[in-house]
Order: sequence, then structure tokens, then C-alpha cells
Amino acid sequence: MNPELANVKACVFDTFGTVVDWRGSVIAEATSWGKAKGFSINWVEFTDLDDLDRMILEDLLKEYKIEGLSEEEKVNWTHVWQRLKPWPDSVEGLGRLKKKYIISPMSNGNVALMTHLAKFGGLPWDVILGSDLVRHYKPDREMYLSAPHYLDLKPEEVMMCAAHVPDLQAARSCGLRTGFIYRPNEYGGGPVGVPDKAKPGDFDVVSVSIVDLAHQMDA
Amino acid sequence: MNPELANVKACVFDTFGTVVDWRGSVIAEATSWGKAKGFSINWVEFTDLDDLDRMILEDLLKEYKIEGLSEEEKVNWTHVWQRLKPWPDSVEGLGRLKKKYIISPMSNGNVALMTHLAKFGGLPWDVILGSDLVRHYKPDREMYLSAPHYLDLKPEEVMMCAAHVPDLQAARSCGLRTGFIYRPNEYGGGPVGVPDKAKPGDFDVVSVSIVDLAHQMDA
Repeated sequence: MNPELANVKACVFDTFGTVVDWRGSVIAEATSWGKAKGFSINWVEFTDLDDLDRMILEDLLKEYKIEGLSEEEKVNWTHVWQRLKPWPDSVEGLGRLKKKYIISPMSNGNVALMTHLAKFGGLPWDVILGSDLVRHYKPDREMYLSAPHYLDLKPEEVMMCAAHVPDLQAARSCGLRTGFIYRPNEYGGGPVGVPDKAKPGDFDVVSVSIVDLAHQMDA
Repeated sequence: MNPELANVKACVFDTFGTVVDWRGSVIAEATSWGKAKGFSINWVEFTDLDDLDRMILEDLLKEYKIEGLSEEEKVNWTHVWQRLKPWPDSVEGLGRLKKKYIISPMSNGNVALMTHLAKFGGLPWDVILGSDLVRHYKPDREMYLSAPHYLDLKPEEVMMCAAHVPDLQAARSCGLRTGFIYRPNEYGGGPVGVPDKAKPGDFDVVSVSIVDLAHQMDA
């Protein structure tokens, strides 16, 4: 392990795109539902959103003129964000990291959503730090610094882990350590179809999966 | 299961005395340490404190004239609250409840302490609701209501579980469901040596362990 990382005590994770395949999960559910309903919608475009917009599903449905939903369908759509599948390595990688570090999401989702998501996907978080605790969203400093604050750690004892370069750059500017995870099928960080990349040295850890990150962190 | 409890979606737990044997754990560590140091202190009396006083160890050490501690000993004492042993049924009972319900501590400890305690004892919380999130302590309403608030539930969908009758009475007055757990070796609720008792009907569930509580909640 990089000896500069010997003080790290907690690893906090961007979740949508880094831990769970939100885009693939939503497209799969929407495609199957849309087919049954006879809707013709470009679901890939529908999911090309930033972190916050995604949370406001009702506005989206309106914008895409998806109308005439039954009460049950509305509830089901609202809950789709609770049914996002982890990437294949996420549960194993987090389980390994958990033996040595405190692990938590560091997402713009709120505590309730992150809790449901963890139960659905079996994500073994130690603690859940949601955006509603500090009423700020990434990339606000208040959000990144909520991790050392609530865990009673120094910023350099916390490592922000994400598949998105801007997320890590913002965390680094707050004094956190940074771990990049390459997610070739996550397009959230740039124009559709272009996942973020990083080369060794760009961040404290550059990895190709959470299992690889755990390995590099001696967990 | 009591049909009135069919809507319960989360069980939140008083932790010190209900989930972990804080008194026995502290007395055991203190006795062993005091013997080595040649201190003659009544550790049972030392631990006869309410929830908040316990957290302020430095004042206690002063009051009991425990002086001349090395830096290492001070750090070790400060961390004793992170090394409290779960009651024998706690991990199994919480594990069973977790399959059906969201489980969280509802303690006057803060997020960092509750996180360390969970890692030490293997408490499988889904989420950690600490007093520092709302800057209130039980029995303030704000603290009990932080559970439905952060979990996006109604008060009656949350069950407060505790070995202390006043804790449950306060939670009930906020609209939460209540589950009593009898802890014959926990004296926190009354004068030293007298654990709280409850009879069937006093609370929504009256149990003798967390495993029993899980059984009564069909988990």
C-alpha cells in the first residue's frame, strides 16, 4: 500500500455509477415497462442526467409526456431508485474494505434512499452519510467534510472513492484522500458514452473495481 | 404478530444497556486496570450515571481523583466506550430483524461512537442515527422523531426498542411504536440494582431478549 495512505480510516463512496449501475438498472426496468405500455421513448437519453435531476422523477415524467400512470405505477417509478443493481464487484469489494475501514456512501441521495438501496443490493455500509444530514450537495465542501466531521476523523483520514473525476477533484480540494474506480459502463462523468479515465498518480489510488481498490488498500 | 404492528418498517434501539452491556464492560476493564495500578475505587458506583454523564469521562476521572494517567492510558480510557460488549442475544436478534426491517441505533451517543461500537461488536445496523444529527438528546421529541424523518416513514412505522421504561414512554408520546426488552443486568433505568420491568400490554411488544423481540415481530 502507498505508505501515505497508512492513516486512512474510512472509505466513502459515490454511489450512483460508482457502486451501483443506476443507468443500466433504470434503462432495463423502463424498457421492459415501456414495451408493455407501448411507449416509444429513448431511455438512454432519459437517463442522461446529473445527480440531482435524477432524483426528481415527477418532473422527468412530465417532460417526457409520460402520462396516464396508475397510482401503483407512479409508486413503482418513484421506487425505481431503490432497486439499482450493484456492479458485480461492489458487494465483495465493500465487504473486504469493511474489515479494515469504516465504509459509507457519500452521495447526493438522502439517508432514506441510501438505506433502501443498501438493503436492496446488500451493500454492507457501516454508516450512511446522506445529503440531508448537512443540507448540502456535492460538490459543496460541506458535503465532503461531513464525512470527517461525523466520523470524528481528520480529512486526510478519509478517502473519497468515485468513478467520476470531478467528484474526486472536489474531495481532494477539501483535504480528503482520493480513490478512482474505473467504470467503463458509467457515463455520468462526461458526454454520453465517455466514461472518466485516470492514470496512475492522478489520484492516491487508481483502480479498476472496488475489489481492486480493496486489494490496493491492503484490505 | 400483533396485527397493529403490520405497518412497522424500522426498529430503532436504545443501545447502552439495551444492545450492549456497557456497565459490565466498563467495570470489567476498570477493575482489571485499577488492580494493576493499585487504585481502590468502587467501580459499580462509578458507572451509576445517566446517559450523558457517561460520555464525559474526563470529568469523572477528576471527580474520582484518578490522576497521573499516561497519554496512552487517557486515550485508552476515552475509547472504552467503543469496546462495549453486546448482550449475548444482540447480534443474532438484530441479524434476524434486519432481514425484515430497517434497524438503527437510537441512542444519545453520536454517529462516530455508534459506528465504532458497531464495528467492535459486530452490530449489523443498516444506518446510524446519532444524536449529533439533530443536536438533541433523548427524551427530546426531536431525537425520537429523527428516525421517521430521516427514514422517510411515519412515526407509527417506527418501533423504539429499549430496556428502559421512560425511554419507551417518551417515544410513545411521539407516536412511535414501542418494544420493551427485559435486561435483568442493566440498572440504567432505576436505582442501582433494579432493572426496569414491564408486563404484557404495557408496550406494543414486551420481550426478554432481542431474539425474542425478533420472534414476536415475525422476523
